[in-house]
Amino acid sequence: MSESATLPGVLDGVRVLEIGHFVAAPFCTRLLADLGAEVVKIEPLRGDPVRQWGAQVDGKSLWWSVHGRNKQSIALDLKSEEGRRIAIDLAQKCDVVVENFRPGQLTKMGLGPDVLREGNRDLIVAHISGYGQTGPGKDRAAFGVIGEAVGGLRYLTDHPPGTSDLPPVRVGISVGDSLAGLYAALGIVSALWRRERRGSDQRYQTVDVALTESVLSLMEGMLPEFGALGRIKQPTGGAIATAAPSNAYPSKQGEFVLIAANSEPLFAALAELMDRRDLIGHERFAGNAERVANAWELDRIITRWSQSLDTQQLLDALESAGIPSSKVYTAEDIATDEQYRARGMVREVADPRFGDVLHPGIVPHFPGAPGSVRNTGPETGADGVRIVRELLGYDAGKIAQLQQSGVLK
Amino acid sequence: MSESATLPGVLDGVRVLEIGHFVAAPFCTRLLADLGAEVVKIEPLRGDPVRQWGAQVDGKSLWWSVHGRNKQSIALDLKSEEGRRIAIDLAQKCDVVVENFRPGQLTKMGLGPDVLREGNRDLIVAHISGYGQTGPGKDRAAFGVIGEAVGGLRYLTDHPPGTSDLPPVRVGISVGDSLAGLYAALGIVSALWRRERRGSDQRYQTVDVALTESVLSLMEGMLPEFGALGRIKQPTGGAIATAAPSNAYPSKQGEFVLIAANSEPLFAALAELMDRRDLIGHERFAGNAERVANAWELDRIITRWSQSLDTQQLLDALESAGIPSSKVYTAEDIATDEQYRARGMVREVADPRFGDVLHPGIVPHFPGAPGSVRNTGPETGADGVRIVRELLGYDAGKIAQLQQSGVLK
Repeated sequence: MSESATLPGVLDGVRVLEIGHFVAAPFCTRLLADLGAEVVKIEPLRGDPVRQWGAQVDGKSLWWSVHGRNKQSIALDLKSEEGRRIAIDLAQKCDVVVENFRPGQLTKMGLGPDVLREGNRDLIVAHISGYGQTGPGKDRAAFGVIGEAVGGLRYLTDHPPGTSDLPPVRVGISVGDSLAGLYAALGIVSALWRRERRGSDQRYQTVDVALTESVLSLMEGMLPEFGALGRIKQPTGGAIATAAPSNAYPSKQGEFVLIAANSEPLFAALAELMDRRDLIGHERFAGNAERVANAWELDRIITRWSQSLDTQQLLDALESAGIPSSKVYTAEDIATDEQYRARGMVREVADPRFGDVLHPGIVPHFPGAPGSVRNTGPETGADGVRIVRELLGYDAGKIAQLQQSGVLK
Repeated sequence: MSESATLPGVLDGVRVLEIGHFVAAPFCTRLLADLGAEVVKIEPLRGDPVRQWGAQVDGKSLWWSVHGRNKQSIALDLKSEEGRRIAIDLAQKCDVVVENFRPGQLTKMGLGPDVLREGNRDLIVAHISGYGQTGPGKDRAAFGVIGEAVGGLRYLTDHPPGTSDLPPVRVGISVGDSLAGLYAALGIVSALWRRERRGSDQRYQTVDVALTESVLSLMEGMLPEFGALGRIKQPTGGAIATAAPSNAYPSKQGEFVLIAANSEPLFAALAELMDRRDLIGHERFAGNAERVANAWELDRIITRWSQSLDTQQLLDALESAGIPSSKVYTAEDIATDEQYRARGMVREVADPRFGDVLHPGIVPHFPGAPGSVRNTGPETGADGVRIVRELLGYDAGKIAQLQQSGVLK
């Protein structure tokens, strides 16, 4: 391991308590942990339900190896008074608490922000929920897919109206949860910076992130264009509404290749490559606006050409002409990509359950101090005894009593 | 305006210089500016090309009202020695520089990190690019759509293999750029926190974010599952690979409604609602694993029911049964949604060009100090004269000379 890889991560010195489950809050804490924060995750005694998601080996989730990495796990019965007390005591030792229960649920459990701040007025509390902590719709049930639909993403992720009877497509990952986790992490670190610079101020120590709003925040011109012009942004399938040609085109084998030749020189290069010099300066394709207006016809022309070539021929031809292009990468393409490997963004990580496991690297990348995967996702409660001993100073007798009474795993 | 809305944002006191264009770097600085940072954007004299994107009114982009908000614009000829000098002088007055040129391009322009850090060793520099600043593939051309494809998102955003000849769908926004912008913002604020806590240390003051890697970072179990099992994650259309039923179902009018009844009690409630109590405990649907295995059949049953009802009937029935559900929101649904309005997440903002413009609110939300939209996207170079006068102390004569020679707009 190089010297820089053994440097502490940029957030070394921050301690975070996660009282979360499933995707959004744990993804937020994975980001913080990847950057070097110490993350303590409180789980129910039976473990976070997300441990059952995705492909398993011997009943252990492979996704969890990544989703839980660089964290510590303490399994507590939060319904017991003693379990609740441990959570409050832990919050006193932390800079940040992250939670993603339904709004108000934590308060009902006796773990509201006021309680968590007992004796620790510096505490930063981040809430993640479907619709936010306030407003008439705050109590509505929301899963990631609902957040994506209400945020406007599902409508736009579809073939153009009239081209298909199939439903709009789900983005292939739980992107609403991931975005909420990212925004929560940004809010948390911003609050940490401010506290460091100007001292404690409660007004800057609560963050309230909604899945719906995290998605909406990315919607580019959708809202101002609707407000000013009454224009409802429409899905464009594989294309882009504002530039052409840019789409996924099939090769002879029916594999799709991305081609983004949406500038004058790139389009000219593509026309040359297709042996269709006649398209350059043609009135229907002579500028971006014309190409967008006639994108359907243009895509048919390009498709006829792309289907005449093997995938690799097609990719090589585009590459040599300097046209932005790519295979539509699968898991296998990513795992074997030399650029990802060269940057440590695809790497083998030793996991005590599975041996070497393929992990994505740490993003954002600090080249001077890139950090490392210090541990893969821990077993439920694996660190509990050590945590109550080291952070809370419990002695062996008290720990044994807590374990016997089923409060601590 | 309430008292809390007039409080400075959480990042008040941070000054950021953007030398960027199009989407990723400007999105990063919008996030920082929304949180209260002072952002100075350097543009070419003819303006950022993104100002031409999307719907226009009188040649002015509506998207820019949001994309450029809370920023200041200075238009410079960076190819001139005097323009370059102004950029360097500005960097000396800033905490952060964000750029998204091709790797090495800024150095070729005489604005490499070493130059920008002249006299300001505290400077944090964030680079955003398609493939990252290092590695054998760093120089490949990359647009957002390429980053999404190479990150693995495009392949998964599709109907299941064999159900459609149409190409995989583009996520309806430039999500690769947005994710890179979010990760860069997280890296920047993390670096600011560390500098504040521990003082200047160059190793923690360079951030290197790639579009491809930002997307890959969200790919859940895709890499570990491929590594351990050789399993290539496949697209699932409107459904989720790990839970059922969850999909978009058509109403009588052919509008799609999201239904997420993927737990035992929710599925039982849906079966009751459909008057199909026989499905509860049925061997093909008696648990999540069985429902996932028979999701195709289950979706056909639910579709037959959903198509028998008007959209509003369907939504009301699901809501009253407590089943997570939603219309697939369009721009219009979002603009009129009372929850978004109640939280200030859809709001009218005065824009000197358009009158009131619909904007999304500020995410992440700090309820105690939510900040505000201080200005909409400025005209190209609108703040240039004031900036060189106030930040760099230039006098009127020097400013006039720079304007006459075409260095400063």
